[in-house]
Amino acid sequence: MNIAVIGLGLIGGSFCKTIKRYTKHLCMGYDLYPEVTEQALKEGAIDRCISPQELQQADFIIVSLHPTQTVAFLQEHAKYIAPGTIVIDTCGVKESILDGVEAHLCEHRIKFVGCHPMAGREFSGFSYALDNLFDHASFIITPTAQTDPVAVEQVQAFAQELHFAKVVLSTPDEHDRVIAFTSQLAHVVSNAYVKSPVLGYQSGFSAGSFLDLTRVAKLNESMWTELFLMNRPSLLIELENLIRHLNEYQQALEQNDRERLKTLLRDGRILKEESLKRDQ
Amino acid sequence: MNIAVIGLGLIGGSFCKTIKRYTKHLCMGYDLYPEVTEQALKEGAIDRCISPQELQQADFIIVSLHPTQTVAFLQEHAKYIAPGTIVIDTCGVKESILDGVEAHLCEHRIKFVGCHPMAGREFSGFSYALDNLFDHASFIITPTAQTDPVAVEQVQAFAQELHFAKVVLSTPDEHDRVIAFTSQLAHVVSNAYVKSPVLGYQSGFSAGSFLDLTRVAKLNESMWTELFLMNRPSLLIELENLIRHLNEYQQALEQNDRERLKTLLRDGRILKEESLKRDQ
Repeated sequence: MNIAVIGLGLIGGSFCKTIKRYTKHLCMGYDLYPEVTEQALKEGAIDRCISPQELQQADFIIVSLHPTQTVAFLQEHAKYIAPGTIVIDTCGVKESILDGVEAHLCEHRIKFVGCHPMAGREFSGFSYALDNLFDHASFIITPTAQTDPVAVEQVQAFAQELHFAKVVLSTPDEHDRVIAFTSQLAHVVSNAYVKSPVLGYQSGFSAGSFLDLTRVAKLNESMWTELFLMNRPSLLIELENLIRHLNEYQQALEQNDRERLKTLLRDGRILKEESLKRDQ
Repeated sequence: MNIAVIGLGLIGGSFCKTIKRYTKHLCMGYDLYPEVTEQALKEGAIDRCISPQELQQADFIIVSLHPTQTVAFLQEHAKYIAPGTIVIDTCGVKESILDGVEAHLCEHRIKFVGCHPMAGREFSGFSYALDNLFDHASFIITPTAQTDPVAVEQVQAFAQELHFAKVVLSTPDEHDRVIAFTSQLAHVVSNAYVKSPVLGYQSGFSAGSFLDLTRVAKLNESMWTELFLMNRPSLLIELENLIRHLNEYQQALEQNDRERLKTLLRDGRILKEESLKRDQ
């Protein structure tokens, strides 16, 4: 295939490197910053540059821009994409993206498939892109009633070709509800966690739990603000739920209620154990 | 030295194995469950068994029991310990332990030094003990005005002999305030985090952040209830602080306040980056 990757940041750059590592497809790249495209070319992560106006040369397009940029880019450049081309995005929210682009791309007879590769690092940009970022990641595909089923199969095969650990089929709605919990809430909590007056004293007083809880606190606030606002209702449900539960522990502590506290901790322990069992 | 390790769970068992790995000291062991002591002997983690009534044979005693057991054990068995013997504990809280045992042990001229090896796993018991659990861990010592300074030096040298990555000198008060943040709060949050209605759907929808946030949810609720209640004021301060900050993100989301949300995320990101720099 002739693949075009639009946006050569951490995720787009890792797609390029993974395509070069595992496949023989032609990999063309475009970044909003020309120097990034140049770097990718110099490092051999892409075979050649491509401009948005040349997109008719691609038969498979991966748009790896931030959410609002993804929508804007596809709205603006659909006219340059050949009918029948498969286009996927890689955004962490799905309903907003589909609402923003699906109808428009359908009009141009472009086969759009909403996707979300479940991988990341606490760094941004092409310099941190890896050819093994997806090795243990799952690749989520969220087809709708409008999605071409053959295109879904082709995207699925492509994800397998890139050695994703697992392909998961979901709906945009389910994806957004679950991701609010597994990813978005984790970023909020981690980012809030470091806001303690004793943060400056933690060095030497931490085993693994502090580092685990705060690893993703170092986030790209522009991108995550977009993602959070695009998934407000689901994230709010999760955040309210967590705060309500934290209040229970707080109350048990305030009341020095040993049995209540132990029960709360036991309930959490059992839920985690059951979750680990399901993962096996 | 003739070392006695009291309590052969994850931490005590790891002390035995680490002593056998790195030193030539005689390592004697005792567990509340005789079959555990037998297992440790069979696996060569201890050179021989010791009963509490034989503790005069030891010149260095490591008490690795749960907090209330640690206090009860030392209250009951101080009479069997020879004057001049160094005794350390390994509990995750320090003021309560010192309040519970220091005066009594002083009367028996036993040199007690409060300690906290900053290591753990999401498993309990001797079967999970490792001879490298402390390899990257710091060893916190919390002397008081009553603590023998020479004993502190000897404990410090012992921690270095066991290849702890770092020895940290603190006060019981500082230890408890910082640990409430770096360890106890992490366990509460992790344990509360899994209490979401969509937990059952997380498989395939998670990159690293969900696993990091919930790793320590699988905790020993009896031990952690003790630790939390022994450090109530500090843990409550941290928990209230975190909930207050989470409420800020919640409010920004509810009000769809993009700038506010981005500022909150940026503040957290900067704090985490500064913290990472201090750790370097």
